[in-house]
Amino acid sequence: MFNKETYMQRRAQLKKTLGSGLLLFLGNDELGLNYADNNFRYRQDSTFLYYFGLSFAGLSAIIDIDEEKEIIFGDELTIDDIVWMGIQPTLKEKSDRVGISHTQPSASLPEYLQKAVAKGQTIHYLPPYRPEHKIKLSEWLHIPFAQQEGSIPFIRAVVNQRNYKTEEEIVEIEKACNITADMHVAAMKMLRPGMKEYEIAGAIEALAFSAGGDISFPTIATINGQTLHNHYHGNTVKPGDLFLLDAGAETAMGYAGDMSSTFPADKKFTTRQREVYEIQNAMHHTSVKALRPGITYMEVYELSAKVMVEGLKSLGLMKGNAEDIVREGAHAMFYPHGLGHMMGLDVHDMENLGEVWVGYDGQPKSTQFGRKSLRLGRTLEPGFVLTVEPGVYFIPELMDKWRAEKKFMDFLNYDVMETYKDFGGIRNEEDYLITESGARRLGKYIPLTPDEVEAMR
Amino acid sequence: MFNKETYMQRRAQLKKTLGSGLLLFLGNDELGLNYADNNFRYRQDSTFLYYFGLSFAGLSAIIDIDEEKEIIFGDELTIDDIVWMGIQPTLKEKSDRVGISHTQPSASLPEYLQKAVAKGQTIHYLPPYRPEHKIKLSEWLHIPFAQQEGSIPFIRAVVNQRNYKTEEEIVEIEKACNITADMHVAAMKMLRPGMKEYEIAGAIEALAFSAGGDISFPTIATINGQTLHNHYHGNTVKPGDLFLLDAGAETAMGYAGDMSSTFPADKKFTTRQREVYEIQNAMHHTSVKALRPGITYMEVYELSAKVMVEGLKSLGLMKGNAEDIVREGAHAMFYPHGLGHMMGLDVHDMENLGEVWVGYDGQPKSTQFGRKSLRLGRTLEPGFVLTVEPGVYFIPELMDKWRAEKKFMDFLNYDVMETYKDFGGIRNEEDYLITESGARRLGKYIPLTPDEVEAMR
Repeated sequence: MFNKETYMQRRAQLKKTLGSGLLLFLGNDELGLNYADNNFRYRQDSTFLYYFGLSFAGLSAIIDIDEEKEIIFGDELTIDDIVWMGIQPTLKEKSDRVGISHTQPSASLPEYLQKAVAKGQTIHYLPPYRPEHKIKLSEWLHIPFAQQEGSIPFIRAVVNQRNYKTEEEIVEIEKACNITADMHVAAMKMLRPGMKEYEIAGAIEALAFSAGGDISFPTIATINGQTLHNHYHGNTVKPGDLFLLDAGAETAMGYAGDMSSTFPADKKFTTRQREVYEIQNAMHHTSVKALRPGITYMEVYELSAKVMVEGLKSLGLMKGNAEDIVREGAHAMFYPHGLGHMMGLDVHDMENLGEVWVGYDGQPKSTQFGRKSLRLGRTLEPGFVLTVEPGVYFIPELMDKWRAEKKFMDFLNYDVMETYKDFGGIRNEEDYLITESGARRLGKYIPLTPDEVEAMR
Repeated sequence: MFNKETYMQRRAQLKKTLGSGLLLFLGNDELGLNYADNNFRYRQDSTFLYYFGLSFAGLSAIIDIDEEKEIIFGDELTIDDIVWMGIQPTLKEKSDRVGISHTQPSASLPEYLQKAVAKGQTIHYLPPYRPEHKIKLSEWLHIPFAQQEGSIPFIRAVVNQRNYKTEEEIVEIEKACNITADMHVAAMKMLRPGMKEYEIAGAIEALAFSAGGDISFPTIATINGQTLHNHYHGNTVKPGDLFLLDAGAETAMGYAGDMSSTFPADKKFTTRQREVYEIQNAMHHTSVKALRPGITYMEVYELSAKVMVEGLKSLGLMKGNAEDIVREGAHAMFYPHGLGHMMGLDVHDMENLGEVWVGYDGQPKSTQFGRKSLRLGRTLEPGFVLTVEPGVYFIPELMDKWRAEKKFMDFLNYDVMETYKDFGGIRNEEDYLITESGARRLGKYIPLTPDEVEAMR
C-alpha cells in the first residue's frame, strides 16, 4: 500500500473534478468457484484500490461531496471468522491507513443511499462488471440490470486520473514487469519438444506466485498462437512448432505486467518461421521508435500494419498498395488485433470503464474488423503506460471464410495463404512509459530478435 | 469425459427418482476478476458436469420429465469468438457426446420456462451459489434473491446419486489424490527456514497445473496453522516453526483430491511439537481404524476428540472427564472443526446443495461451537468418499475470549495454555473410500508419523 497521503490526494482531486454529488464505490466480494466458500483468489476492484487502497472483501465506500464525507462501509470479524480465516486489523484501523476516519457497518449503506436519493443528490456509480455488483445496484438503487450503465462524469474523472501514472506507480509497474520478464526467460530456457503446454504455463505461473503476487491475466502458452486468447494448455509440443507465450505478473499491490514472446520448439527457427518473425520484429521496432507524446496510437498501429503488409508482399502472401490495404482493412487477415493497450492496476487498464473513454478519450471506435479491436487509439501523453504488441497470424477459419466471401481478392493471395495454414502465430510484446521526450521500456529486456531468441534456447 | 452412457444413465436415474416436473440446470459462466473479459479460470458447475459432462461456459440444460425432453441451451461461436478464443465443437457435437440430441439457442430458454410455468409444470432448480445464477433465476423465473432456496426433492435426488461414487469415478478421484500426494511430498522435501510461504504454495500449485488440472481449493501453506483456512502466504519461515499444508489437485474432469500435512521448518520436530503431533496422529489412526459402513461419522469424530482430550490431559492442558468434555464441547478449544467431509466433483462435495442433505441426510446439525462445523455426521455407506482430517490447534484469540468469559474452567488449564500461544496448529488429512468391509485409502501414501516426516526432511 502507498502512504495514506497518496489516497487522500487522489480522492481530493476526484472531488475537485466532480464538484458535487455522491460517489459510490463497490468493492469486490469473494466469489465461489463451485460452491460459495470455495473461493477464487480474491481480487479487489482496481478503482477501489486506487482511491481506498484496501484489498479486503466485503467493503464499499462513499464519497459524499455534498456533505463533505468519506465513509468506508464494512463489518468487523466474528470469532468464527478469526478461527477460520485469521485476524485482520479492525475496519477502523484499515481505514485509518488510507486516511479515512469515518466507518459504518455494511448494513447501513442502503439506507444512506436511500436518504441521499430522497434529498435529491446525484448518485454516481461505475459500470458493474461483476454480477455481485449488478445485484447490489439492483437492490440498493433499484436500477434494472439492463440500465446499469454507470455515470459518465464519474467514469471520465476516474479515467483522467488513472491514465496518468505517477512515479510511485511506475516503480510498482516496473516490479511487475521484471517478474513478467523472468517468466518469459524461464519459458524460453525450458521449452523442449515433447513437453505439454501446461508444463510451461504451470512453471512460469509459479514464478508469479512465488514473487508474492499472482498472474495478471490468464496465461496464453500455446503452439496455436493463431488463436489470440488461447487458454487451452493441453497440447504436446512437437518439433517444428512455434510456441507463443503471452503472460504477465501482478504485484501484491495489484499493478500488472504483460509481455509476449514467440520461440521455436527446436533450438532454431525454420527458414519460414524466421522470415515471418523478422517481419513481426520490424513491426515491433517501427512501433517502438514512433512512441512519443503527440502521436496517436492509431497512427503507430497503422505504421506497424504497413510494415507487415510490405513484408507479406515480399513473401507473396499479399499484393497491392499498402496504403489502400490498411485503409480497407485487408491486413486484418494477418493482424486482427490492435497494437496495445493501457496498463496499470488492470492489465487492460480500466477496460471495465469503457475503452472509448480510456483509449479514445470519448471519440467513437472503428467498426472495421481488426481495427475495432484496437483498445487504444488516442493521442499519447507523458505518464501513459502501454503495451506494444504487434502480431502476425495465419488463421485457417478466417482464410476459409473470407475466401468463400471472395473478400479482398485484390490484396490477398489465397493460394499462397493455403500453404501457411499450419504456421500458427507470432507476437512479441513489451511495456512502455510515455515520457516527455519519447518512451522508456519498463522491466528487464527479454530476447526479441531471432538471434537473441535462438541464443537463449 | 466419461462415455455418453454414463451421463445417460445418471439422467435416467434422476428422472426416475423425481417422476415429474421440469429440472433446470444452470451451467457456470465466465467471471471477470477486475473487468468482464479478464477471467478467472473457468470452472463448470459440478452438478452440470455430473449429468451433462460439458465444461464450457454459457450452457444451461433442461430435463423436462413431463414432456420427455432433454435439451442443452447454448450458442454457436461467431468468427470473432474463433479468432480470439479458438474453435470448439458445435453445440450439436458437444451435446451428442453426452447423449443429448436436442439443442436450442440460449435466448430461447426464458420462453421455454415461461411456457412451462403457464402450463402449471413444477420447475425444480438448485440453490444458486454464484451471483450470475441469482440474476438468471430472478430474470427467468421472477424469484426474488432472498427466496432462491432451491427445490428440496431435486436437491435430495442429486445428493443421493452423487454421494455414491462409481468405479470410474473412484479411478478419477484416485488420480487427483496421487497428484495431491506428490504436492505434499514435494513441499516436505523443499521447505527450509528462510523461505517464504508463497514459494512453497507456488511450487506445489505448479504441480497441479502441470498435471493438466488445477488446484481443488485455495492452498493453505502457513506457519500459522492455528488459522484453519489461512490463505495468507506472505510470511518467512523461521527455525522452530511448524508448517501446515492443506492442498489438493483437481483433475481435468473436475474430480478433487484433498490432503493435509504438518512438518517442522527444521529437520526434526522439537520435543513439544512431537508431543502434540503424536496426539494428533493417534486421533488420525483411531479415526481411520473406525471407518466402516454402519458407523456414523459423528461417532468417529467423537472417538477422535476423546483421544485428543486424553492426550492433552497428559500434557496438563486439559482436565476432567473426556466424556463430559466432548459432550459439553470444551475440546473445541483445540479442535474447532469436523473430522472431514464428502469429496468428489467438489472438494467439499455438494456443499452448495446444503451440508444438511449431503452430510446429515436431512437431520439437523448441532449448533455447538466446533460441532456445528462438522460437515459430515451421517451413517457411512459403501461408495462414500471422504476425508479424515483431525487437528490440534492453539488459537490465542479463542483462548483470550473463553478465558475472559470464564468458560469451561473445569476442563481447560488456561495457565498452561498461555505457554502454547505460539505453537500454531497440526492437521493431517487423508482421503478414504468406504467399502463393503471397511475403508480403502485413496492415492499414494504421504509421510504421516513423526518418524516418517523427519525421514523425508
